Amino acid sequence: MDYVFEKKFEVRDYECDVQGIVNNANYQHYMEHTRHLFIKTIGLDFVDLHNRGIDTVVSKVEISYKKSLKGGDEFLCKLNVRKEGIKYVFLQDIYRVSDMALCTRGRVEAVAVIDGRLGVSGELDNAFGVVIR
Amino acid sequence: MDYVFEKKFEVRDYECDVQGIVNNANYQHYMEHTRHLFIKTIGLDFVDLHNRGIDTVVSKVEISYKKSLKGGDEFLCKLNVRKEGIKYVFLQDIYRVSDMALCTRGRVEAVAVIDGRLGVSGELDNAFGVVIR
Amino acid sequence: MDYVFEKKFEVRDYECDVQGIVNNANYQHYMEHTRHLFIKTIGLDFVDLHNRGIDTVVSKVEISYKKSLKGGDEFLCKLNVRKEGIKYVFLQDIYRVSDMALCTRGRVEAVAVIDGRLGVSGELDNAFGVVIR
Amino acid sequence: MDYVFEKKFEVRDYECDVQGIVNNANYQHYMEHTRHLFIKTIGLDFVDLHNRGIDTVVSKVEISYKKSLKGGDEFLCKLNVRKEGIKYVFLQDIYRVSDMALCTRGRVEAVAVIDGRLGVSGELDNAFGVVIR
Repeated sequence: MDYVFEKKFEVRDYECDVQGIVNNANYQHYMEHTRHLFIKTIGLDFVDLHNRGIDTVVSKVEISYKKSLKGGDEFLCKLNVRKEGIKYVFLQDIYRVSDMALCTRGRVEAVAVIDGRLGVSGELDNAFGVVIR
Repeated sequence: MDYVFEKKFEVRDYECDVQGIVNNANYQHYMEHTRHLFIKTIGLDFVDLHNRGIDTVVSKVEISYKKSLKGGDEFLCKLNVRKEGIKYVFLQDIYRVSDMALCTRGRVEAVAVIDGRLGVSGELDNAFGVVIR
Repeated sequence: MDYVFEKKFEVRDYECDVQGIVNNANYQHYMEHTRHLFIKTIGLDFVDLHNRGIDTVVSKVEISYKKSLKGGDEFLCKLNVRKEGIKYVFLQDIYRVSDMALCTRGRVEAVAVIDGRLGVSGELDNAFGVVIR
Repeated sequence: MDYVFEKKFEVRDYECDVQGIVNNANYQHYMEHTRHLFIKTIGLDFVDLHNRGIDTVVSKVEISYKKSLKGGDEFLCKLNVRKEGIKYVFLQDIYRVSDMALCTRGRVEAVAVIDGRLGVSGELDNAFGVVIR
């Protein structure tokens, strides 16, 4: 798959649970943080948007867990995005750096909520337009 | 839908993010905790199983986000489970208590990993057999 | 010690780390949540206060860790509060229910920040006045 | 103050709460992660030690909160360590990169627990000996 953004991180021990592996919910945190870093590269900021009444809200998440990350593992968060109707669909995969094994495969749907109502934001569309083909 | 287990919780403020609503990843925490409480009612314990080399590992998560929970909101985590091949499939919905609005609809696939390898656990099958029809 | 508020909780497995015990930072979450529940009993709400420009901000935390909580453990969060100058000082202890062992002993200083500046809030003082002697 | 270790991080939006600032407990996570990275530089690994029956357990934490970090802020976690009796005392300060303002000042006491009992570990003492003067 093609990706338009990637960022490397390292597992923090507190993200792991009794099984010694990263707790499932934390992959969603990794993916959220990756999206927020990505939208900065196209000129958007999650908190700034929120303060101006524009919220990007996740409406659906699908994550397939294939390999587990452990404390200290380095991993690459890769991302692509496309538009389907009013939804932005993020394809987000996480790879373990040591062997480039695919750890999780994610699909995240988000919508724009403007002043509390589902809407269309020209600002978001223009910014995403640069990377969506 | 029929459910075989439910448990009421209250949103903790630290679970909310800048948007003033529960962060998406935390619903996965709610759902995990609900599963672990549920399996106790059928005689299983997540940590005890792990210590005996039997891990229940989530292989796939799908969550639809419909309404947001806010700080202080009470919510009901409801659960059903069925078996598909070697997978246990949990259907997990979260309702806001104040108006019983459906907040999230979740589907979680888990498999048994025994001494590090995908496997079939008679102990798990017997325990789940009581509630899976 | 005398306490003016207490609330019982149960450890969630995701709050535990590789050592199989509740991660240290989570006790601070338990203590924060307990404070927020407590202030509701005296008519205050953390989020509502924030939305009206009144933030209660923690300026100092001291926690002594004495016994560890494990997955599934029930625990009691107990709280007292006094005023020292402009600071509210919360004494917050956590006991394991099974044997009432003291697990953590906490001392949390908080101040009022009004519209972004350190201040004195009559509303807070009046509310706390009922429980501070 | 002199420091023997430092590492730069960036605030992730999910670490912030309704007040728009990093939740207090997360500073403790930052400090834990910094300690674990630091001990790797002197040849120790938290998880590996745990698996061999040697746990470094935090017995006391004191944190003064001076400035708040916000989403996207870069920050430097700095650390020093000394020994007091059987305790390792970590001095851990966090600075905001943009203006090098001191955000939090921390003091963390840890002890060695060997096979479940408070103890002295020659392995830890030797490793720390290189940096403690």
